[in-house]
Amino acid sequence: MTLRVTIWNENIHERQKDSVPAKIYPAGMHGAIKNLLETELKDQVVVQTATLDEPEHGLTAERLAQTDVLMWWGHEAHPRVSDEVVQRVYDAVLGGMGLIVLHSAHYSKIFKKLMGTTCSLRWRSSKDRECVWNVNPTHPITQGLPDPIVIPLQEMYGEYFDIPTPDELIFISSFTGGEVFRSGATWKRGLGKVFYFSPGDQDYPVYHQKEIGKVLANAAVWAKPVVRTEPIDATFHADGWFEKN
Amino acid sequence: MTLRVTIWNENIHERQKDSVPAKIYPAGMHGAIKNLLETELKDQVVVQTATLDEPEHGLTAERLAQTDVLMWWGHEAHPRVSDEVVQRVYDAVLGGMGLIVLHSAHYSKIFKKLMGTTCSLRWRSSKDRECVWNVNPTHPITQGLPDPIVIPLQEMYGEYFDIPTPDELIFISSFTGGEVFRSGATWKRGLGKVFYFSPGDQDYPVYHQKEIGKVLANAAVWAKPVVRTEPIDATFHADGWFEKN
Amino acid sequence: MTLRVTIWNENIHERQKDSVPAKIYPAGMHGAIKNLLETELKDQVVVQTATLDEPEHGLTAERLAQTDVLMWWGHEAHPRVSDEVVQRVYDAVLGGMGLIVLHSAHYSKIFKKLMGTTCSLRWRSSKDRECVWNVNPTHPITQGLPDPIVIPLQEMYGEYFDIPTPDELIFISSFTGGEVFRSGATWKRGLGKVFYFSPGDQDYPVYHQKEIGKVLANAAVWAKPVVRTEPIDATFHADGWFEKN
Amino acid sequence: MTLRVTIWNENIHERQKDSVPAKIYPAGMHGAIKNLLETELKDQVVVQTATLDEPEHGLTAERLAQTDVLMWWGHEAHPRVSDEVVQRVYDAVLGGMGLIVLHSAHYSKIFKKLMGTTCSLRWRSSKDRECVWNVNPTHPITQGLPDPIVIPLQEMYGEYFDIPTPDELIFISSFTGGEVFRSGATWKRGLGKVFYFSPGDQDYPVYHQKEIGKVLANAAVWAKPVVRTEPIDATFHADGWFEKN
Repeated sequence: MTLRVTIWNENIHERQKDSVPAKIYPAGMHGAIKNLLETELKDQVVVQTATLDEPEHGLTAERLAQTDVLMWWGHEAHPRVSDEVVQRVYDAVLGGMGLIVLHSAHYSKIFKKLMGTTCSLRWRSSKDRECVWNVNPTHPITQGLPDPIVIPLQEMYGEYFDIPTPDELIFISSFTGGEVFRSGATWKRGLGKVFYFSPGDQDYPVYHQKEIGKVLANAAVWAKPVVRTEPIDATFHADGWFEKN
Repeated sequence: MTLRVTIWNENIHERQKDSVPAKIYPAGMHGAIKNLLETELKDQVVVQTATLDEPEHGLTAERLAQTDVLMWWGHEAHPRVSDEVVQRVYDAVLGGMGLIVLHSAHYSKIFKKLMGTTCSLRWRSSKDRECVWNVNPTHPITQGLPDPIVIPLQEMYGEYFDIPTPDELIFISSFTGGEVFRSGATWKRGLGKVFYFSPGDQDYPVYHQKEIGKVLANAAVWAKPVVRTEPIDATFHADGWFEKN
Repeated sequence: MTLRVTIWNENIHERQKDSVPAKIYPAGMHGAIKNLLETELKDQVVVQTATLDEPEHGLTAERLAQTDVLMWWGHEAHPRVSDEVVQRVYDAVLGGMGLIVLHSAHYSKIFKKLMGTTCSLRWRSSKDRECVWNVNPTHPITQGLPDPIVIPLQEMYGEYFDIPTPDELIFISSFTGGEVFRSGATWKRGLGKVFYFSPGDQDYPVYHQKEIGKVLANAAVWAKPVVRTEPIDATFHADGWFEKN
Repeated sequence: MTLRVTIWNENIHERQKDSVPAKIYPAGMHGAIKNLLETELKDQVVVQTATLDEPEHGLTAERLAQTDVLMWWGHEAHPRVSDEVVQRVYDAVLGGMGLIVLHSAHYSKIFKKLMGTTCSLRWRSSKDRECVWNVNPTHPITQGLPDPIVIPLQEMYGEYFDIPTPDELIFISSFTGGEVFRSGATWKRGLGKVFYFSPGDQDYPVYHQKEIGKVLANAAVWAKPVVRTEPIDATFHADGWFEKN
């Protein structure tokens, strides 16, 4: 069955005239990620995009109901994302929708709400080389990849990364400066799967790199709902002894 | 050093005239829990209580700053707890304060906010016997206890309990009806430790039972802050290579 | 691609003339399990069996090389399984072969060797009813099952079960006597996946129950190798900086 | 109560005349580690040492019974350690004794037996700088330490490190070459606690570094038995319903 992915991007850096991101990503980072996914997954995937400026940020109830896996890139505009849309995405994840959180979206409302921590980290934009090492060689997300994935230029994200203990640790990165980072990790939340993947700063062409596309394609396939229900948040009253129900 | 515990209770059931909880807990459940802790920990502990009806629910910034470990019992009044106080408690936990969440507080705003899930479960109030089995025999919370702890009459709480994978699973309960429940579990959130412990319905004298007091005393000692800071939620900019800072 | 499963059974109880197991399992427990798997997976699976009395217990290097997933039932004859065969199975698991460990095989040499613990537990054969509750509703092993699975008559296996913390807890059982047990759990070991599933005593017709077949079929599909290599146990010398290799 | 630590060292490199380790560690690595522990823990600790050449490698049943926490350094002589002594140490760990496994002892018989994996890794001895980053800031093992701990010269140990998922991930290291390593991790095995800590190659003065002493002292205090019993490996027969026992 075709996998339905929606890529959400705040789409701000790329539209700033003559900015570095505008040059690297003329079609927006969502456009570049769409291209990566279609290259890897071909007709197994249907990719749509949504951005901050669309009505309801492009994430209507109808759209979410038609989305198996949502990818999220945000940075400057975290506070501008409406709480109502965040709640809607949250309910969808708990009801089974997959969520892939990218780079600076560690600080998005939706990721913090799902994690229950500050999600703070250490950073420096100094053209570090990032090496992404695979610490989970039988996980579906790591199949078909070189080890390490080398990203020639990237912003540094370093520990301490204030997240709950991951259910599965997938990647650990090092940076030129000697820092390390848990750059790929998964959590279950309700019926949904969440994957955080840190590579992808707006100032470097990370989303034009084929290996990154492979990671994101693997993650999308992995995050596909096993069970999908309406958003539920209701304690179940067992009226009688279970064997008589 | 003396451990400073604050017990928060919505204190509603116990004040309903002629109600079962009023008879079982004339001093409120917070009063009974206070008594359990003082019996177990004697002069190692100073226990204070706070309730819904106090200004700011008794949980001012000053009070939280003077609290090592907060215990939380709530049920009917979850929606009446102010979001501002919940945020304050949340910040304190992420800054290191211990939190022990009791019984129907699985559905409290603070627990759901820290977990990032619905925290829904199955229940039935039919005078089940609950057996609380120890699945972590070297954990500090389980020391000095019979195995199982038998609670003659209790509300049934059953799986599926929609929580994130616990960092540590401590207790599993069975009930007369054949149901099971992860009745004791821990999570780290930021710099704080969280323990959920399900026994303790308002209609049964669970908080008069000595073994339950032992669990709560052990948990309070365990949850004591290792590090305690101001509430922080700020990503750290590394201005330069770390070795030159 | 067809899944190749080998079911290993010590095949002792069932051959004791006029014994209860002989009546319940005239084709052996391995025969009953084979039937369950073929009923569920049809032409997606090719099932072979192997028993203690065969040369090399039926588990030659060739057989293991042709096995994606090995199921293991043992009880009385644990000490009679040769250390050489155990080492061979161990190497195969670390090299990617799936392993599903059944009931009293908690005490098999291979399970103890993979776990690094005693794997001891509490037990009583008193015709308990076992209720197997699903605590991981999005795990592939739990799809398509009633919750709970009710086994009318079973041996009781109870906590404390001396195992390492599972990577994933899948099922928790309760018994008539009030005991609980982590009856389904997974671990990764090297490149292989391990699933322990406790239902299946020789004195009760558990392996004639359709739901048990569904669990075992799901587990076999789940445990299929992602990566399969020769048994390796060699630290890798990096002769130079990795980027020049 | 005084903590009783035994440091076991194969003590081979340091006795090779004019070798680098002989110059760095004239009293042996066990001597240097003893000094580190006594400096940190003073009269809270009594440290003894044991080496390969002593009868029963210095690890008699009596000695183990008097040991709360055992530290283990080995490299060249792993195969020369007797299986009987390994079994004795294994039984002691499962019965509650703490075990701290150092550097190249990732490949010791005792560590592999407790882990159930190959424990293989990537390595290169090229005078890398190792930065040891704290990813568990409230864990007792990480208290009172700089972050990162910088080791000016060290052998590189890199991923993939073939270990079971740690119960707790404590440290992640980076190396000059860009590699990363889970350099500090804990597991429970039976009633015992196990900590693996990778810094400490024989060719560099790592065990003269004060911060390393702090880690080892913290780990020794953490690994102290909570419960200590005779080695047990016996399934418990519950003769009747538990409430009648």
